[in-house]
Amino acid sequence: MSNSPVAIGIDVGGTKSLAMLVDRDGTILQELRSSSENDDTRGPGESMTDLLARQILEICETNNLVPADTPVGIGLPGLVRRDGTLAYAANLQSASGADFPALLRAKAGVTSVEMENDGNAAALAEHAWGAGRGVENFAAITLGTGIGGGIIANGELIRGRNGFGGEVGHMIVRAGGLRCACGREGCWERYASGTGLGVLAATAAQEGRLPELSARLGAANVRAEDVTAAAADGLEEAKALLREVAWWLAIGLSNLVEIFDIGHFVIGGGLSNAAGEILPVANAELVSLVMAGDMYLPFTVEPAALGSNAGALGAALVGMRRGA
Amino acid sequence: MSNSPVAIGIDVGGTKSLAMLVDRDGTILQELRSSSENDDTRGPGESMTDLLARQILEICETNNLVPADTPVGIGLPGLVRRDGTLAYAANLQSASGADFPALLRAKAGVTSVEMENDGNAAALAEHAWGAGRGVENFAAITLGTGIGGGIIANGELIRGRNGFGGEVGHMIVRAGGLRCACGREGCWERYASGTGLGVLAATAAQEGRLPELSARLGAANVRAEDVTAAAADGLEEAKALLREVAWWLAIGLSNLVEIFDIGHFVIGGGLSNAAGEILPVANAELVSLVMAGDMYLPFTVEPAALGSNAGALGAALVGMRRGA
Repeated sequence: MSNSPVAIGIDVGGTKSLAMLVDRDGTILQELRSSSENDDTRGPGESMTDLLARQILEICETNNLVPADTPVGIGLPGLVRRDGTLAYAANLQSASGADFPALLRAKAGVTSVEMENDGNAAALAEHAWGAGRGVENFAAITLGTGIGGGIIANGELIRGRNGFGGEVGHMIVRAGGLRCACGREGCWERYASGTGLGVLAATAAQEGRLPELSARLGAANVRAEDVTAAAADGLEEAKALLREVAWWLAIGLSNLVEIFDIGHFVIGGGLSNAAGEILPVANAELVSLVMAGDMYLPFTVEPAALGSNAGALGAALVGMRRGA
Repeated sequence: MSNSPVAIGIDVGGTKSLAMLVDRDGTILQELRSSSENDDTRGPGESMTDLLARQILEICETNNLVPADTPVGIGLPGLVRRDGTLAYAANLQSASGADFPALLRAKAGVTSVEMENDGNAAALAEHAWGAGRGVENFAAITLGTGIGGGIIANGELIRGRNGFGGEVGHMIVRAGGLRCACGREGCWERYASGTGLGVLAATAAQEGRLPELSARLGAANVRAEDVTAAAADGLEEAKALLREVAWWLAIGLSNLVEIFDIGHFVIGGGLSNAAGEILPVANAELVSLVMAGDMYLPFTVEPAALGSNAGALGAALVGMRRGA
């Protein structure tokens, strides 16, 4: 555990990087957003390292911090080994295999760099400072292009043997179902994510279940965001489709209940813009999907509190907690 | 944590009850088997309490133990609340709602009675004394009529908020699939258990994929145990069907890998009689099913070590560890 009163947390995505300086109460003292750089002609993670080093040095300079004394935590969209190397990142191929702690030591003079999966980082942040405060068993689920997630059980993050735990989006909920980008068939994120909603919308439009939206946009052009916007305007056919997504969301949540007996789910990510339509339905479906669901204490499925800051906040937390 | 050098562990099933006296090294000092009694005309768990009290008192008498000073642990096939009451047990309806600690205090004079789900108890026993010794993240899966299980993550049992964690058999792996006794559709235990093999066998026989067995027994009469016996004799059509079950087993295991990053699985229960055919196939399928499976340290899917004693041993462990 580091003694530093602050840490730098960075949330690295496929296209952008959000860096922040955070104190021990989770207060954000500074924020920097940059486009991420992917240059496949250089070694794994080298172009990304340039960007991260610039962000770290700028924050240190602005705040009179010595890089060598400032703990850094980084959240990455992929499988992060316990030793901090990035084993696999589908949307960050140029960084796969990178040893960021070593690269950043060399490039920015930082000495304490801790890495974590971005979904796990977000769960840690929601647990410490957000909608999961004080909850011993809970999951933070991010519905975006895919489904990210992190799970706290017995008060501790599920990291697993290699550090790859929490890949809930790739739980198979329909064996033999839709093919996922990961190569498997029937992954949860094919159904309950923003992408999943897009696929459901395309199918529904084809099948004539979105007559109004099809008339407006053409049946071939109905996208996920059209559905969520129309549902917000009260269009019943769009709301019906969101209930379908909510059912798929509840299927995966019910599996996490069977496995973990989690009572509290925190949902973030782009699709959660439609949280008002989706989450209450998912919550109700959950009770009937879980075996003997009425024997459980009531379930809560609620929006995440930290929004798009959760990943960077959690990364800072990892930097503080695990850093030297 | 109790100071007693021994504890009584009892594994209660739908039709029988196995009680044993166990020391702190997991050595079995005495064993008693009885048929369990279900009398629906009496209060919840009362007929079962008579049986458990007899077993406890007999073990105490034989070993000169004072019931009030002897910790007792009991494993039950159902949802056991953290306070020791049985919330729900599909195959033990007459005991649903029972408060066994209170009933046994009154009936047998014992003062320390701890309850746990039987799959969780078996996992604790395999972790302490069996095939999961020293493994921080592992799962013990029991393939019987259904699928039972218990999961150790970060070195600790996954119990969850109510105490209902570890119901892995009711993880949905094929939404909209076969209806399960629990009321859900597509639960893992509909496919990868002994019952699942029976269903697969019936379908395969109907579809003409078990010509030899159908000729011998009649296509309508091919049961799970006929398939495992014929596979043991080397019949290729039977071995092919076991590979199908192995694939379904691997589907559920791969979900547990995505969620927990578990590397070590221990498989017990009736269907594991065909372990030699099933487990190596499941192990190989697992690597290809898991996203970026080759980035993980090698997976192990191996037979449980404690056999049908695991539940009672684990119950004794729970009695020792949690008892006053």
